[in-house]
Amino acid sequence: MSDKKNFTLAVVPGDGIGPEVTTEALKVLDAVVAQYGVTFERTEYDLGARRWHATGETLPDAELEEIRKHDAILLGAVGDPSVPSGVLERGLLLKLRFTLDHYVNLRPSKIYPSVGSPLANPGEVDFVVVREGTEGPYVGNGGALRVGTPAEIATEVSVNTAYGVERVVRDAFARAMARPRKKLTLVHKNNVLVHAGHLWKRTVDKVAADFPEIAVDYLHVDAATIFLVTDPARFDVIVTDNLFGDIITDLAAAISGGIGLAASGNINPDHSAPSMFEPVHGSAPDIAGQQKADPTAAILSASLLCDHLGLTEAAAAIEVAVTADIAERTGTVRSTAEIGDAITKRAIG
Amino acid sequence: MSDKKNFTLAVVPGDGIGPEVTTEALKVLDAVVAQYGVTFERTEYDLGARRWHATGETLPDAELEEIRKHDAILLGAVGDPSVPSGVLERGLLLKLRFTLDHYVNLRPSKIYPSVGSPLANPGEVDFVVVREGTEGPYVGNGGALRVGTPAEIATEVSVNTAYGVERVVRDAFARAMARPRKKLTLVHKNNVLVHAGHLWKRTVDKVAADFPEIAVDYLHVDAATIFLVTDPARFDVIVTDNLFGDIITDLAAAISGGIGLAASGNINPDHSAPSMFEPVHGSAPDIAGQQKADPTAAILSASLLCDHLGLTEAAAAIEVAVTADIAERTGTVRSTAEIGDAITKRAIG
Ligand SMILES: CC(C)[C@H](C(=O)O)[C@@H](O)C(=O)O
Ligand SMILES: CC(C)[C@H](C(=O)O)[C@@H](O)C(=O)O
Repeated sequence: MSDKKNFTLAVVPGDGIGPEVTTEALKVLDAVVAQYGVTFERTEYDLGARRWHATGETLPDAELEEIRKHDAILLGAVGDPSVPSGVLERGLLLKLRFTLDHYVNLRPSKIYPSVGSPLANPGEVDFVVVREGTEGPYVGNGGALRVGTPAEIATEVSVNTAYGVERVVRDAFARAMARPRKKLTLVHKNNVLVHAGHLWKRTVDKVAADFPEIAVDYLHVDAATIFLVTDPARFDVIVTDNLFGDIITDLAAAISGGIGLAASGNINPDHSAPSMFEPVHGSAPDIAGQQKADPTAAILSASLLCDHLGLTEAAAAIEVAVTADIAERTGTVRSTAEIGDAITKRAIG
Repeated sequence: MSDKKNFTLAVVPGDGIGPEVTTEALKVLDAVVAQYGVTFERTEYDLGARRWHATGETLPDAELEEIRKHDAILLGAVGDPSVPSGVLERGLLLKLRFTLDHYVNLRPSKIYPSVGSPLANPGEVDFVVVREGTEGPYVGNGGALRVGTPAEIATEVSVNTAYGVERVVRDAFARAMARPRKKLTLVHKNNVLVHAGHLWKRTVDKVAADFPEIAVDYLHVDAATIFLVTDPARFDVIVTDNLFGDIITDLAAAISGGIGLAASGNINPDHSAPSMFEPVHGSAPDIAGQQKADPTAAILSASLLCDHLGLTEAAAAIEVAVTADIAERTGTVRSTAEIGDAITKRAIG
């Protein structure tokens, strides 16, 4: 465990089910770290759809600079159908990821014992996707001309740099080294997106020379989706670009027990800014405020948060508690808070 | 059926298993159309990896102009690991799709009775993806600077026009009108790729006004992959961009019986140039020349070809024969030719 005992945490509960699942994640987090004499001093930020409707603001720079001073960020979910698509995604979520240089978007996929998969024979699924978080088609370098006319043209530019690709590829290799199977799969589409794809491929080949123990594989993104449903157990660490990572991690979540269990970390491995942890699911406004949401993904995100801060025992305790809770799920409907309570009890029990 | 009796067909058997599956597709095609007094006069084009190794050529313009004079094109598969990634894809396959203005890339997905799916409960899967074929990130408008240095930058530009989007969206709505469920789902990522995504969304909204009977739906591409494994029966017609279509159609093939059954048409709905029909699978060089390949996808592509040329009864006869053949597959291994023979017999029987 880290020597540091008192951390600061910026909390963005957000919209829809965000506040509910965040409450449970914080409940578990506080209880677990207390066991180790660790505290999180929290500041809550009111960001998301409600704030945007009230003030027109998504993420003022001054607030971003405040958030930046924290040790980590916990985010629930942002977004609502009442906000034009893209406003909060680009103005809040992606602004945080890009400004705080979250170049590793970490998304583990695991089939927990007793969790149903839509696959008939999923096998032993336990892989992690290292999704690039600060480049690719997400950079916002697009534009449109003659909007609304028959002569409209809209472009989206994917930007990829040796700097940006190499750092995330190195991180992925390091993560593969720490895992028993020591396997890394690059997912791209280098037969069509030849410029970006060849940069990724050459970078992986180059970095591979520094990691001779790692078995390296390449798959086009279309083929990767096939293997994710026919043989997901083949994967160990996947490294991929921002957009392909977005797509395959939702698929990965779906085949391994659903988006209700999928945690993620938007990580700045250099610790030059706080990393941000969030469930992969969205704000699910249709079930908001009804205590129907499963807080497990948010709770597992708190585990990733602990891990990132060096609170490795706390991270493990949360994961073990979640695994035990999942193993005994019987189909009885529990409220969001009941699930949080049950996991808390196990984690400190 | 069409009044025309004699058609010309450009055949590109290609690499790997391409020639074998093409032989069977032509066997079925010839036998079936003969029943209606129809003939296909064939010209074979030696294009693909072998040709590139021998001459350095992918698709000389003169040959492209010859191919253009035909009524349709049947393609087996192109590509080989010995050819640098992108050379044949961009120089041959995409050159054909783009030059011949194949703006509708049609990819049906169906679970045939008795075909196994990797999904535990797939339900009644019967949808078609209308993938845009001449724009998006496939246009080849990217580049790279300072290649091989730490300062390298590589870009890929997705180009989307009102002209290009509207024509494929109209085609998709027309196809939805011809189907019993009358449902259309736009798949994009308009919360991040806001310029292209909003053009697609606005276009669908506009065209929808001309098709009031069609129920219209929107899904982000990441969410679409979730539904493709948790509830694929919800889809009827999906319209989407070139890259998203590439990804979700491989996934669609995987959940509905595998890439061995997935047919596709690269269609020029205006008939200003020949359309091209090809199995979705690749050249599978590992099993080439061994009569191990399943020719069903190529044969179903020949059915799509007939349909496009107005040979609707022939198209239906092939599909019925394939369905019957699949229904009686017992697990006994048959050679590529044996499968072709069996389907031919059923189709003309
Ligand atoms: C909400 C959206 C911007 C986001 C993304 O595309 O990254 C989400 O889908 C995710 O995967 O975290
Ligand atoms: C081979 C490749 C260029 C092609 C594509 O990306 O379109 C293939 O994956 C397909 O789906 O037909």
